[in-house]
Amino acid sequence: MPKRFSASEYSEGILAGNRVVLSRAITLVESTLSTDQELAQQVLDAVLPHAGRSVRVGITGVPGVGKSTFIEALGLHLVQEQGKRLAVLAVDPTSQRSGGSILGDKTRMNQLAAHPQAYIRPSPAGRSLGGVTRSTREALVLCEAAGHNVIFIETVGVGQSETAVHGMVDFFLLLMLAGAGDELQGIKKGIMEMADAVTITKADGPNEVPARRARREYQNALHLFPLAPSQWSPVVTTSSALTGAGVPEVWQVVEQYVQHTQQSGYFQRRRQEQHLHWLHETIREALETRFYARPEVQARLAEVQQRVQEGRQSAFSAAEELLRL
Amino acid sequence: MPKRFSASEYSEGILAGNRVVLSRAITLVESTLSTDQELAQQVLDAVLPHAGRSVRVGITGVPGVGKSTFIEALGLHLVQEQGKRLAVLAVDPTSQRSGGSILGDKTRMNQLAAHPQAYIRPSPAGRSLGGVTRSTREALVLCEAAGHNVIFIETVGVGQSETAVHGMVDFFLLLMLAGAGDELQGIKKGIMEMADAVTITKADGPNEVPARRARREYQNALHLFPLAPSQWSPVVTTSSALTGAGVPEVWQVVEQYVQHTQQSGYFQRRRQEQHLHWLHETIREALETRFYARPEVQARLAEVQQRVQEGRQSAFSAAEELLRL
Repeated sequence: MPKRFSASEYSEGILAGNRVVLSRAITLVESTLSTDQELAQQVLDAVLPHAGRSVRVGITGVPGVGKSTFIEALGLHLVQEQGKRLAVLAVDPTSQRSGGSILGDKTRMNQLAAHPQAYIRPSPAGRSLGGVTRSTREALVLCEAAGHNVIFIETVGVGQSETAVHGMVDFFLLLMLAGAGDELQGIKKGIMEMADAVTITKADGPNEVPARRARREYQNALHLFPLAPSQWSPVVTTSSALTGAGVPEVWQVVEQYVQHTQQSGYFQRRRQEQHLHWLHETIREALETRFYARPEVQARLAEVQQRVQEGRQSAFSAAEELLRL
Repeated sequence: MPKRFSASEYSEGILAGNRVVLSRAITLVESTLSTDQELAQQVLDAVLPHAGRSVRVGITGVPGVGKSTFIEALGLHLVQEQGKRLAVLAVDPTSQRSGGSILGDKTRMNQLAAHPQAYIRPSPAGRSLGGVTRSTREALVLCEAAGHNVIFIETVGVGQSETAVHGMVDFFLLLMLAGAGDELQGIKKGIMEMADAVTITKADGPNEVPARRARREYQNALHLFPLAPSQWSPVVTTSSALTGAGVPEVWQVVEQYVQHTQQSGYFQRRRQEQHLHWLHETIREALETRFYARPEVQARLAEVQQRVQEGRQSAFSAAEELLRL
């Protein structure tokens, strides 16, 4: 067990871009110990003025879509060709650091993980969705303070994490496969409407023609749908992590989006809304956690839920009953 | 001011199908007085065993789509041809009983309002979204107990009410116009993905051909999207409230959906989930309302929000600060 740093040792190390200190600070924000949490908040408040100067991109897609290889290809383009400093975080509340369904080990992004301008961090293990999203949100701030100017936040597209991730990024990218009738079933309904861009992956070899057809179909379909408040019309592209074709173009779309929304003022407005959202979400979570942890509530909850579920008591009178305790 | 009924006078009147008592009971659940709320809960718990025997349909569409005329046409079909007893409720938190944007007066559904098997109730005025959805949820229970076996819940499709309504109905119907490029902008993103069916309205005269084309386009687009947990593939139809063409077919789709989901067990499972959802939502709302109403929180909130919004304090340490008060 390494010795504990002080708050200023953490914050100075982070601001100096020290990756070891950054990693240990992220471990600190992931800790559920209240002493760690207190220290983490001091570190976060100290580095906060140096955060915020990045483009935050949520990337999602079901297993099999080629997410790791795509992120490696796009990431290498950013660090090698664009001079960016990239951090890749993951939100995967189901991961128990065993299945490795998502960034489970860095070996799936060999080259990117080895690059000095890239920092890859898997999802914290064995925590609730609320816990994972909170510590990811905090890790994002730490990575920005450490000088990373592009942040990827990766999710698997099958759960509830996407809404949370959508609430902490500037841009939401969905990876899809051509001819994905069946694969599509794996994606949770509602995710497609969050996408600012869709890229049809593995568009190489015999897959290239179906990929281009899928691109057209999705582009047409998305045009039928209402615009987001950003007034940005979602873009659909094809890409191949194997040949590299279409990979830089995805980043061009992100940059166009950033330019579009910075000019309209939406970019900054949305970030401010996100900050407020996280304030109120954190309060909500704390209030609920305290309430449901109370012994008298725990003693009655199962029975009350049963009655409500079976329609023997109205949700509202049941809520009253628990709140009166 | 009519005299107050007792809880049993309310519940007996409702169960006997007395519309005057039903109306006064809904006024009671809409009241924010705590004595009224207590009485309302007694009434609700008393009639609850007699509720739940209806098909609950959410209907949404932006102003101009012809929602009132469509609801009147479909409603008259149900009460006249199908022998149904229909209740139409509205969720419109913006309505101040003046603009009449939604069911503001019943005169827009003349014939339906006059029919003895139909009961129409506008949105409660001047309340928050939480308040409106809660009282609508309770009014739904009262209408079912009064013997209505089809419930329509109408929203305007531009706000946040749709998610709440989606959480209290079995089936979600979206009304759209052909060639609605511009009208579409009025619909909030995310609503289309909630639809179990879409009907292209005003499909008559010169509008019939574009309506049929729009039907095909939407049907194709929706097929590209993931299935909901119901495993139901959304259906797109055309209809005309003017000629009546396609109106009975919308109801056939609803009945097919009910049959499909009752056979799979999804119908009942979803209702149980909805009950639990409302329990936890009610608790959450009560906890938040109590927290934000505390004078020491109110005194600090604006300043803390400002700091968080401007990125001068992290959402999490700000939340801690407020929670410690």
